[in-house]
Amino acid sequence: MTIWQQYEPALLTDLYELTMAASYLEEGMSGEATFSLFIREYPAHRAYFVAAGLEHLKEILPQMRFSDAAIDYIASTGKFSPAFLDYLRAFRFTGTVRAIPEGRIFFTQEPILEVTAPIIEAQLLETLVLNVVQMETLIASKAARCVHAAGGKGLIDFSFRRTHGVDAGVKVARASYLAGFLGTSNMLAGKIYGIPVFGTMAHSYVTSFSSEMDSFLAFARAFPDNVILLIDTYDTLCGARKAIEVARLLAAEGKKVRGVRLDSGDLVQLSREVRNLLNDAGFADVKILASGSLDEFKLQELLAAGAEIDVFAVGTRMGVSADAPYFDIVYKIVEYDGRPLLKLSSGKKTWVGRKQVFRYYDELGKMREDLLGIMGEEHPEAESLLDVVINDGKLVRPFESLGPIRDRFAKELETLPLAYRDLQTTGTYPVKISAALDDLEERTAREKTKQEIMGK
Amino acid sequence: MTIWQQYEPALLTDLYELTMAASYLEEGMSGEATFSLFIREYPAHRAYFVAAGLEHLKEILPQMRFSDAAIDYIASTGKFSPAFLDYLRAFRFTGTVRAIPEGRIFFTQEPILEVTAPIIEAQLLETLVLNVVQMETLIASKAARCVHAAGGKGLIDFSFRRTHGVDAGVKVARASYLAGFLGTSNMLAGKIYGIPVFGTMAHSYVTSFSSEMDSFLAFARAFPDNVILLIDTYDTLCGARKAIEVARLLAAEGKKVRGVRLDSGDLVQLSREVRNLLNDAGFADVKILASGSLDEFKLQELLAAGAEIDVFAVGTRMGVSADAPYFDIVYKIVEYDGRPLLKLSSGKKTWVGRKQVFRYYDELGKMREDLLGIMGEEHPEAESLLDVVINDGKLVRPFESLGPIRDRFAKELETLPLAYRDLQTTGTYPVKISAALDDLEERTAREKTKQEIMGK
Repeated sequence: MTIWQQYEPALLTDLYELTMAASYLEEGMSGEATFSLFIREYPAHRAYFVAAGLEHLKEILPQMRFSDAAIDYIASTGKFSPAFLDYLRAFRFTGTVRAIPEGRIFFTQEPILEVTAPIIEAQLLETLVLNVVQMETLIASKAARCVHAAGGKGLIDFSFRRTHGVDAGVKVARASYLAGFLGTSNMLAGKIYGIPVFGTMAHSYVTSFSSEMDSFLAFARAFPDNVILLIDTYDTLCGARKAIEVARLLAAEGKKVRGVRLDSGDLVQLSREVRNLLNDAGFADVKILASGSLDEFKLQELLAAGAEIDVFAVGTRMGVSADAPYFDIVYKIVEYDGRPLLKLSSGKKTWVGRKQVFRYYDELGKMREDLLGIMGEEHPEAESLLDVVINDGKLVRPFESLGPIRDRFAKELETLPLAYRDLQTTGTYPVKISAALDDLEERTAREKTKQEIMGK
Repeated sequence: MTIWQQYEPALLTDLYELTMAASYLEEGMSGEATFSLFIREYPAHRAYFVAAGLEHLKEILPQMRFSDAAIDYIASTGKFSPAFLDYLRAFRFTGTVRAIPEGRIFFTQEPILEVTAPIIEAQLLETLVLNVVQMETLIASKAARCVHAAGGKGLIDFSFRRTHGVDAGVKVARASYLAGFLGTSNMLAGKIYGIPVFGTMAHSYVTSFSSEMDSFLAFARAFPDNVILLIDTYDTLCGARKAIEVARLLAAEGKKVRGVRLDSGDLVQLSREVRNLLNDAGFADVKILASGSLDEFKLQELLAAGAEIDVFAVGTRMGVSADAPYFDIVYKIVEYDGRPLLKLSSGKKTWVGRKQVFRYYDELGKMREDLLGIMGEEHPEAESLLDVVINDGKLVRPFESLGPIRDRFAKELETLPLAYRDLQTTGTYPVKISAALDDLEERTAREKTKQEIMGK
């Protein structure tokens, strides 16, 4: 058994979700609660997020059960009553999930999803929902920036070796493909999601042969239709000349070198020199790939400086979202038993009640502003972003394939005004609060302040 | 089937590992290769690393097989010959792994492990070995800094909701416990590794009751032996006064409030005021816990400013190693068929050949310096860090329990001079290169330069 086989969704949780649930059960609190999942703040130089992770939740939630092994473990902590263990044994998610589909753009304060369910169920999902959605949204949002910076050049995910574990690696491949990457080096993700996989050779391959030339020729023998040569093992320009020799040899057999890859040194200077060498030798169709510590900032810098690179392999910094390795994402209760709820903790605002995001476009079809309002408000000229995806614990929308989600995001990004796509943006997309929501928030806060704090 | 059940170690790989392997097979390259896993550079303000991940590799490598489903997927790419697919079907790891045990401290350039095996096998492990070891070493190293900063105060891992996926969440709990944390909120990790689990209530719990006081009383009814109250939902000092009321009520029944938790606001000021309120009310034994955007820097700042906090719950920033979310870790071929190998790519030095790390201590038992040398060199006064853990593909060391590894690290950290433990260190622990290794490196580089570059 591998460690991953022991990962069951019902235990993808924190102890406190279970202690709270046990107390709710003991108190007979069976009313419906609504929790909102949203991001509080933008990381530096970020102005939008790309929704991802929902399809995984759609897989998990309707099937979520506590296995016997899980119950045994929970019992072994000695903290829980037989009645609560029985509750867990019979657990089924029976609630409703309303969510923004994957591949859509959203902003701070806007719920990515809302769960409405008997409070125990909705509470038990907290850790799971946060973990699944934050990870995938984090990477889709980072990868989208790389896609923007690449300005039409191809991108491939090379991050698997340095992602935070295996689950992250697979999800990074999926999220970056969703955001517009061409594919990934990651075989697990290729198998699970049908994402195109790319890759040819490492430096170890080149050095293991008695000469660089021998390694190139061996690779061409093994993969004559996919000859992409890594040319920086010893010296990039010498490597380029050897690649040209190989290209000539292959040309004699009606075959080609498809590309060369650079992985070190001054990529601007080297790519231009390699491009010239290739062009002068009559191999203008040989593509230049580059890799090595790339991210959206580096891509922008390389292209602005005139690098002659056709495809970028982007690894670690995208795969861990290095400049912003987490979002301030939270899952907050906003209603219980019909009563709007909030906490007053300093600096941590939550909008009460079940909500909807209403989006307005300008006459050119670009996003103009969003309105955060109460679910059920009528704004006929706006588009509503949250839809019911699970009802009574059952899927009401079929699973979406990755291809259409990817297409949706490509279109969606076009509707985002350029100012917010800019890598160094300082702009904030307007998200207004509806009068009704503002009023509800104000009344709720006033009452709670009076009840809990005035006596201070 | 959950997504995690589809994660099989043999596919925890990049396509290029397979294309290289296929070419080695076709070329009849069956000689032994050695690969070294090491970290090239320190992130800012880091001066040491904590080895972790080896126990997972010990589980995976001897059992690693390509399932039929994996072979089918690999075949479906259309890139591979029947002979190579047969090779994969029969794949067993038959090599040797020498490694630094978990919980030991190591430095840049030092191999954490070396794999010696027929080149195809050693190559195929690259992505897997990197992914497993980087993640766990990354977090153990970050958590160790928190332990140092906490200066004896307790630490609990609260990061599961924002780790990069589930695998990361479980491994963060294990790696932080290894580094000295008291436990985790993470139920999966509690179940899998037997790590103590902690947790009581969230703000959602407090707000879902008609009053804060009601929520505190309900919790005390459900968990009378583990009453830890979250007191900042509305106003921290009001919350503290209510916790004192609860403590008085419980005292009448011979029970106690064990602690209160602060999660927002000025933790220095609030913790001192809460401490005073508790002490004045006769509850000096009630502990104060704090959470909310903590990391080693914040811990140090809080304690230096006189915060009265007994236990810190450290979450996201530790769980994603936010200041350094990846290491520049690589797995490089250093020998093939008895021949030392290196690449010459600019700025990417690799020490050739099979190596050993020799450690010297001063008269007080503190680490003085390390010597990176060739395996087999004799340095009788030094300790050798790498040991054989797998030989002929089989474990030669039993699995280690987490407890002893944790104890080992606690002792190990004491032997590291304080200058390198400092959070803002600019010092670099001395790692010298043996004369024999330096000579071998120099000869190998000279020969390769002559062969591959002189004609430039």
